[in-house]
Amino acid sequence: MDEKDFNARDVMETVSLLIEERDYTALRKILLDIEPQDLALLIEKCSNRELPIIFRLLPKVLAAEVFVEMESDIQHELIKLFSDKELKAVLDELYVDDTVDLIEEMPANVVKRILHNTDNETRVFINEILKYPKDSAGSIMTVEYVRLDKNMTVADSFKRIRRVGVDKETIYTCYVTEPDKTLLGLVTVKHLLLSDEDSLIGDIMEKNIIYATTNDDREKVAREMSKYDFLAMPVVDNEHRLVGIVTVDDAIDVLQEEATADIEKLTGITPAYKPYLKTSVLEIWSKRVPWLLLLMVSATFTGSIITYFEGTLSKMVILTVFIPMLMGTGGNAGGQASVTIIRGLSLGEITMGDIFKVVWKESCVAILSGIALATVGFLKFTLIDRADTITALAVCITLIVIVVAAKFIGAVLPILAKRIGIDPVVVASPLISTLLDAISLLVYFGITTAIIPQLK
Amino acid sequence: MDEKDFNARDVMETVSLLIEERDYTALRKILLDIEPQDLALLIEKCSNRELPIIFRLLPKVLAAEVFVEMESDIQHELIKLFSDKELKAVLDELYVDDTVDLIEEMPANVVKRILHNTDNETRVFINEILKYPKDSAGSIMTVEYVRLDKNMTVADSFKRIRRVGVDKETIYTCYVTEPDKTLLGLVTVKHLLLSDEDSLIGDIMEKNIIYATTNDDREKVAREMSKYDFLAMPVVDNEHRLVGIVTVDDAIDVLQEEATADIEKLTGITPAYKPYLKTSVLEIWSKRVPWLLLLMVSATFTGSIITYFEGTLSKMVILTVFIPMLMGTGGNAGGQASVTIIRGLSLGEITMGDIFKVVWKESCVAILSGIALATVGFLKFTLIDRADTITALAVCITLIVIVVAAKFIGAVLPILAKRIGIDPVVVASPLISTLLDAISLLVYFGITTAIIPQLK
Repeated sequence: MDEKDFNARDVMETVSLLIEERDYTALRKILLDIEPQDLALLIEKCSNRELPIIFRLLPKVLAAEVFVEMESDIQHELIKLFSDKELKAVLDELYVDDTVDLIEEMPANVVKRILHNTDNETRVFINEILKYPKDSAGSIMTVEYVRLDKNMTVADSFKRIRRVGVDKETIYTCYVTEPDKTLLGLVTVKHLLLSDEDSLIGDIMEKNIIYATTNDDREKVAREMSKYDFLAMPVVDNEHRLVGIVTVDDAIDVLQEEATADIEKLTGITPAYKPYLKTSVLEIWSKRVPWLLLLMVSATFTGSIITYFEGTLSKMVILTVFIPMLMGTGGNAGGQASVTIIRGLSLGEITMGDIFKVVWKESCVAILSGIALATVGFLKFTLIDRADTITALAVCITLIVIVVAAKFIGAVLPILAKRIGIDPVVVASPLISTLLDAISLLVYFGITTAIIPQLK
Repeated sequence: MDEKDFNARDVMETVSLLIEERDYTALRKILLDIEPQDLALLIEKCSNRELPIIFRLLPKVLAAEVFVEMESDIQHELIKLFSDKELKAVLDELYVDDTVDLIEEMPANVVKRILHNTDNETRVFINEILKYPKDSAGSIMTVEYVRLDKNMTVADSFKRIRRVGVDKETIYTCYVTEPDKTLLGLVTVKHLLLSDEDSLIGDIMEKNIIYATTNDDREKVAREMSKYDFLAMPVVDNEHRLVGIVTVDDAIDVLQEEATADIEKLTGITPAYKPYLKTSVLEIWSKRVPWLLLLMVSATFTGSIITYFEGTLSKMVILTVFIPMLMGTGGNAGGQASVTIIRGLSLGEITMGDIFKVVWKESCVAILSGIALATVGFLKFTLIDRADTITALAVCITLIVIVVAAKFIGAVLPILAKRIGIDPVVVASPLISTLLDAISLLVYFGITTAIIPQLK
């Protein structure tokens, strides 16, 4: 693929040159060879003068495809440059779910202009989709699918697909409904192609189908689609009427966004759900600083624990050397467990019923890890850090206790959080690691004062 | 979807009962209504006595679909129970890429039995795929696709699809090649359906296509597929001959696995690329303990920094209170920056060329965050921790310096790592956070000894 990789900067030079020379025929030829997603990247690098020239050279359908792929600030720029007629031409080619995405990003006056330039039917659909919650299946579904009747033959169906297919996001899964849109079944184009022309759809359709309802969580729907290898999933309302479908490309986007959100939450960032470079400094700041503040304040309590044992530490200065190591190891060991469990929960690989298996597994891993750390640690503490045997022993016992406690807490907290309906990711590091810091210190001072003769 | 959620435990009770009553007709009826993925979950809960009974009740095609979805230990169990004839029946229905996946998981003696029971043509394909590196496009591609000739008409193509389609993983994108398999173009079934029956494939095919080569990184291919909303991506060899295709369901799995791997690496775990519950204790331990050891040893150096400044600390006990907070804040602030940048790099939202934009943005965020932390901190340190004004001021200045340094390092290191060809995730936390711990301490002692009169 390397030789085919699209380099927006290089192409843009050629494009700018052709615009200067007004060689629009050559320019159009180049543009037509580029994928819509790459054209969108190219157009983001345009000057405001070049922007409308390039955009107007594109055939209507391609222009709409490119428009969908652009970042919202450039879309806004373009809409300002569009005449009402041009805007209507683009909107006519957009899928309704893309128009909804656009509306959600634009300021009120632009939304008004957009709605003014869409036809009545589309406007009804738009309002329909806009009323679903942001994380729901309804909010990511498309209303353009191929609907078949159970009394049609396979030949009829192909006629229908040929007639209406051009405007649909996918034609490969067709849905069979009653006239009132109650979902009866589905049939794939593969199945249609392999069936007899005269077969009735009602006879060949798949009746036992998996569907989502409009209020289902979009991540759950995307995960089911990935599990069952679906290209599309039907979405029904409470009366089991088909209102739309979720297509696999949107499901992938949801899975990617949710993975990013999980990674951000684990790091102490409130997810922004948009690309970094398109997020303003203030917005980035607002997603991060509450966590930094919370963790800063909670960490001063850990500090107070150290001060509380200042007397102990002053009796044996070497004990201080091990504090960052013990706190770090507790945090790392707990983080390993919690992150593994959280990802397993989120991928559906681990369920509530597995809690005892998880605890057992983590306990075994913890004991083995603790022993390994203690063994290596003992050698390093005595040989390099020049600690006496009793002190090194106390630190090593602390290590084992901390690792076991950390793995246990790290494994159990996310599962408990999920059981009581809290997002497991939120309880995970860095919050768990602050908790583990405090526990590590208390265990350390408890064990050292109990074992080391000088401290008694 | 809630009402449709599959509960393996509940269904298993019914299934066990029917097996006991030997009511295989009723049992078969129930099984046929369940999706292959859910049947696989069900079968994992079976006893070894029930396993073959259930499996033998399934029609051949469904049995193969279920087999693919099962975890490798259960597959192993089943193969041991199979007669050669039964094994061959399942293998005949598997797609070649699934057979390869199976071979990679099985012990040598089972592999031998599998190869013995596959036909010659398939064995050639298997050996072909097995030779590609584990992370390559070649390793995840399927060799079963629909190949068309440029001289075929649309009607011919449909005939061909009807003839060969039943065995192909996808029929919706068909590939046009020369007789020697040189890739010429592609045509989708949608396009075929909307074209005239007599059109020549050579005239209507899409010639300007995006493809992967066998050695391309599988994650890159999956990302491109997601970017361009492809249902399949052709894979060619060095002579531009089509050797296979990557289908969207496999691309989704790759993206999910890589997201998991990124999360694990960020937490200090070497990815295992398999589900937690299927990974043995020893394997989990081996993926985690090297990181714990590395971080434990590096953290003792941080400890040495504290000991080095023991004299300073003993002059002002209150300085110790702030150590965990400063180290934690440095780690958290740097982690926020590095994780955001790493995810942006991995999603392709941030490229090398954006390094100055990123540094500028992170610097602004860092200064704003530093000021916010310093303001809240000053109030807490003076009012709650009872620090004097000069000490609180020194800690606050340290906070600002640490946050700015941490955000800068956290943002720049991953980009530099990528430039020199190292996986950015590996340089990120917890390694960055150990580095930041040391820096935070040095800055702290530097600033406090410079500002606070008692320490001079």
